[in-house]
Amino acid sequence: MHLEAIYHKPYSQFAFPKDSNTLVVRLRAKKNDIKYCAVIYHEKYNNSIRGKVEMKKTASDEFFDYFEAELNVGIKRFKYMFYLEDNYQVKWYNKNGFFDYMPEWGFFTYSYICEADVFEEVDWFVNSTVYQIFPDRFAKVPPCIENIGMKYGGNIKGIIDRLDYLIKLGVNAIYLNPVFKSDSYHRYDIIDYYELDPVFGEKNELRKLIDLCHHKDIKIIFDGVFNHTSDKFFAFQDVLKKGEASLYKEWYFVDSFPAVNYPVPNYECFSFYGGMPKLNTSNPETARYFFDVVKYWTLEFGVDGWRFDAADEVNRKFWRDLRTEIKALKKDVVLIGEIFDEASSWLYGDQFDSVLNYPLKEMINDLFAYRSIDVELFKMRINSYLMNFNKKVINSMVNIISTHDTPRFLTLCNGDEKRFELAAVFQFTFPGVPLIYYGDEVGMQGDTDPDCRKPMVWDEEKWNIKLLKLYGFLIDIRKKNEALRLGEYRDLCIDGDEGILAYRREYGKNKIVVVMNTKEQNAEGTVELGNSFIDVKRMEALGERESAQVEGCRIKLGLKPLEWRIYKAVEE
Amino acid sequence: MHLEAIYHKPYSQFAFPKDSNTLVVRLRAKKNDIKYCAVIYHEKYNNSIRGKVEMKKTASDEFFDYFEAELNVGIKRFKYMFYLEDNYQVKWYNKNGFFDYMPEWGFFTYSYICEADVFEEVDWFVNSTVYQIFPDRFAKVPPCIENIGMKYGGNIKGIIDRLDYLIKLGVNAIYLNPVFKSDSYHRYDIIDYYELDPVFGEKNELRKLIDLCHHKDIKIIFDGVFNHTSDKFFAFQDVLKKGEASLYKEWYFVDSFPAVNYPVPNYECFSFYGGMPKLNTSNPETARYFFDVVKYWTLEFGVDGWRFDAADEVNRKFWRDLRTEIKALKKDVVLIGEIFDEASSWLYGDQFDSVLNYPLKEMINDLFAYRSIDVELFKMRINSYLMNFNKKVINSMVNIISTHDTPRFLTLCNGDEKRFELAAVFQFTFPGVPLIYYGDEVGMQGDTDPDCRKPMVWDEEKWNIKLLKLYGFLIDIRKKNEALRLGEYRDLCIDGDEGILAYRREYGKNKIVVVMNTKEQNAEGTVELGNSFIDVKRMEALGERESAQVEGCRIKLGLKPLEWRIYKAVEE
Repeated sequence: MHLEAIYHKPYSQFAFPKDSNTLVVRLRAKKNDIKYCAVIYHEKYNNSIRGKVEMKKTASDEFFDYFEAELNVGIKRFKYMFYLEDNYQVKWYNKNGFFDYMPEWGFFTYSYICEADVFEEVDWFVNSTVYQIFPDRFAKVPPCIENIGMKYGGNIKGIIDRLDYLIKLGVNAIYLNPVFKSDSYHRYDIIDYYELDPVFGEKNELRKLIDLCHHKDIKIIFDGVFNHTSDKFFAFQDVLKKGEASLYKEWYFVDSFPAVNYPVPNYECFSFYGGMPKLNTSNPETARYFFDVVKYWTLEFGVDGWRFDAADEVNRKFWRDLRTEIKALKKDVVLIGEIFDEASSWLYGDQFDSVLNYPLKEMINDLFAYRSIDVELFKMRINSYLMNFNKKVINSMVNIISTHDTPRFLTLCNGDEKRFELAAVFQFTFPGVPLIYYGDEVGMQGDTDPDCRKPMVWDEEKWNIKLLKLYGFLIDIRKKNEALRLGEYRDLCIDGDEGILAYRREYGKNKIVVVMNTKEQNAEGTVELGNSFIDVKRMEALGERESAQVEGCRIKLGLKPLEWRIYKAVEE
Repeated sequence: MHLEAIYHKPYSQFAFPKDSNTLVVRLRAKKNDIKYCAVIYHEKYNNSIRGKVEMKKTASDEFFDYFEAELNVGIKRFKYMFYLEDNYQVKWYNKNGFFDYMPEWGFFTYSYICEADVFEEVDWFVNSTVYQIFPDRFAKVPPCIENIGMKYGGNIKGIIDRLDYLIKLGVNAIYLNPVFKSDSYHRYDIIDYYELDPVFGEKNELRKLIDLCHHKDIKIIFDGVFNHTSDKFFAFQDVLKKGEASLYKEWYFVDSFPAVNYPVPNYECFSFYGGMPKLNTSNPETARYFFDVVKYWTLEFGVDGWRFDAADEVNRKFWRDLRTEIKALKKDVVLIGEIFDEASSWLYGDQFDSVLNYPLKEMINDLFAYRSIDVELFKMRINSYLMNFNKKVINSMVNIISTHDTPRFLTLCNGDEKRFELAAVFQFTFPGVPLIYYGDEVGMQGDTDPDCRKPMVWDEEKWNIKLLKLYGFLIDIRKKNEALRLGEYRDLCIDGDEGILAYRREYGKNKIVVVMNTKEQNAEGTVELGNSFIDVKRMEALGERESAQVEGCRIKLGLKPLEWRIYKAVEE
């Protein structure tokens, strides 16, 4: 037994409450080492309330197997240890290490499942598909400005004008990049957090947009830029003018007075841009000001969620306190961090509900666009990712393939639509909330910023209708299948060509299996669906594709180059 | 290279800020595998600001070596990866895995050192020695009650009467078990959080005790029981009387009304005791009430710290909010959780400053009292413990060998004073705040509760004067040597008998080396002090013991059975 590879830690992704009565317990072990394992548990204060639950292997990655059990046994306070078997020996594993006989003490402890500490999903969000609009570049309706500098002149009226398009597409939520007053076209340097940028229109238009959306059950997510302001924001202007005497000097990090931008800023900035001085959000007055901003738009305008810019550069107490304040007023507001890297420490339920899932995007890039990894490595990375989180978090992650900060995915694929299709199918059938970056659905291309922010193409003759239909289809099947929104992901074993990726999502009787051929050659294989498919006779292909007969929990596949199929289990 | 054993994760005990300009980065690898490793880093937004820092091996445990580097390079936003060499190959390790050539991307990220998120030590606390008083059993001054049931009748006047004893002993802080109104002798079922228990005396006496202590630079730590109340507490009484109509029904977890205790409680309790109904501290009104209790005693009476009972069974937001409220009013109040198990998730700086260190006590038990592990395994467990935490947390941990919830340590040693001595020496020379459980210092014995809570022995003829002197000595050297309060711990290699434990603590020029023979036979050995002792000529033994000459950064030892020595480096 490879003891050095075995790992568990309470109060982490290895032991967390799924609800107020269920503790999920995971164990990591070296790949292909452990043949059987179980959790042995008892009530913290009464060890006559006890039991043993077998753990199931739920994932494997490059080095490890992961085993999991859900303890839902009528107790909230747990003492537990693990029983392990490989081909040669048995071991007991507890907080003190490994033992040949069951030790009397040294149990791991999960002290109490506090209902208040359970990560709680925002229901509407988990069940959504999000459409991202970069407001300057989406749509403009005259009277509006002509192109001025970088500004194209998109506006709120333009979005209202195109709302039917989004309704028809079927999305349930719109994420707007910043709309507050700013000199720049991207509006990430905000001058007035209480004003809609005048180029975008008037507040009553924004109100109308939100009301129209709500009328059609579409939620609105705003972009909150609280890491930094514009240098033209009143507080920084006051610091520039009054120096050390400014009442706002604690709102920023100024090394010495007077604050100057040249030759280099003598105050902290976002990146190194003097035009974006970094806020001191640990200053209670500063925090108060921005909490009130969030409250204003959320309560007065009915905003349903916030995406927070550069969230990992802001102190955590700011996010915790903001969460407390805003959730007390509107419980189902969704709070999403922009964090480019591994973000688990922001997702314990005390800070964000979700983050933009850039790490997943990197894996999607590697497999589908760059072809730099094979299916096997992709599956292992996916499993590492899944095992890195409390499982409830996974369904809330915002899964992206393009954003305003990346080249468009079709461009990463060098225009190869079939590869783009595979990525979109994956995005919509993998756990998490899919986000469509405006224009991706009609085949827009664009390299790194500013190229990825070109105006939305409204000339239907330039649309890629096949892609647009695909998006309509994917949005639709996600709506109709709980398994795609709430079901757990399991990759499936294949006997056949190594280019085939196959996985299932299950939620009760709703069972979806996705298969795709990631290679440019025909591929064949037999897919093991697993024992839960024992009563399934037929896998019906969604979207006018070839269905499959199930025999002995297996299906046989013949796939053309880059072909995908989404099957739904039919018991009949 | 054993890739499966290599581990790093940002925002964890593997990457944390030590101060607003220093990032500590750790790497774990299989024991004896890696010969050289380094961190390669650059500024998050400007990769021309870059560098490479060698990592030093700082600890080893049963399976792993741990490497560490401190990045203090004038940047706050880090991208980094690792360079690794074993005897056969080189590898680069980043968030995507392992590579034979340095990858261009895939850097780990530490986004920004937010000063507000840095774990901040409470200075006075880190520099203290704590004395724990169980008030019913410490001292009584008439007029007071005679023994009634379990109550012995200790009181506040009694503590005041014995204050000179504590001053002479040299402790800087007193931790009092609960003093609020309660029917029980232990007072963990509190009836009125705003009243001193009348058996203990009057509030003006308590105020006098605190003022006298403060006058002598002794801090007072109270015991906060907020997981549960007495069933006689007004709110629960209201629930009992009014049932579902009670304004306090959300203060508890009552399954059905009326709330009843028989045959079993139909409400949640501490353990299964109907007399201790569990509080719903996630209810804002309930939280408000108990925050105000903490404020009252802290501000009106000058209490300097709180130990929180059953802290791991209370929701985390309660602790975070309590921290925010009370630290805003008195920044240097110390907040200590009672958590019996691995507590790192409460010690990120947002919840507690410290916990009672029961896991360390278990190691001390095993080596010194039970003799169930050898020095080698003890050192490895100690290193696992140290590597499990942000290094700043370590100096704040409350290190215990006895408490009111455990048998007294001398009893665990079957009365063997020499073993007790070794444990006390270890406790006072290992990082963390030592706590003396009343009476341990004079050789009191006692098995599990209630035996460990016997009245303090005041008959000096029954005192173990040798132990009392030892405690005086240990308290004194801890005061005089910053290394013992703030210096990092490193275990030392020994060429010689395996029963010898040796470690050093260093803080600037103040260098302490502790050696002890844990076996009952004479022991000999040569101790490698490390290169930082290059200028040290002599190790002066503190406390009238034999000093040692340093030659080539080594000292030679000859130790009698269970002998210990504490050396201080002398450069001359």
